[in-house]
Amino acid sequence: MEISDWRNRIDELDEQIVQLLSQRAAAAVEIGRLKQSRSAPIYEPQREKDVIEHVRKVNPGPLSGAQVQDIYERLMDVMRELQRQRP
Amino acid sequence: MEISDWRNRIDELDEQIVQLLSQRAAAAVEIGRLKQSRSAPIYEPQREKDVIEHVRKVNPGPLSGAQVQDIYERLMDVMRELQRQRP
Repeated sequence: MEISDWRNRIDELDEQIVQLLSQRAAAAVEIGRLKQSRSAPIYEPQREKDVIEHVRKVNPGPLSGAQVQDIYERLMDVMRELQRQRP
Repeated sequence: MEISDWRNRIDELDEQIVQLLSQRAAAAVEIGRLKQSRSAPIYEPQREKDVIEHVRKVNPGPLSGAQVQDIYERLMDVMRELQRQRP
């Protein structure tokens, strides 16, 4: 396979990744609403630690655990921002 | 649905997201090898711009375009790092 073939493959994967990120974001919005209705804090460090532990555990490679964690830390920052935007 | 139900849903989505990130990373490794064999640069700003444009275009929400871009900038940083690790 040539570079352009791998890039087409990446573009297809990106479409699926964006779909899943959107579904994850929609679930985060629902959690944000439930928390708001109970005046519960948006930021829950233990839950975020559990998420990181989970994604590191299911990671088959070639990304290292630290690299998956790096991506997920940004992802959770963005999800928290989204929850705060939508009361 | 309760918070715990949404969290179970998120955990399922995360397993799928990590699988797709891993497939994307494997494709990036292949591209890195092809580039290395041609002494081509790993960092290609125009390709990265195209990836951002693509993911913003296919994003259905509730994440904003800027939020999807934010996640993808981290993701591409990590993928570039991975390509440099594996000559």
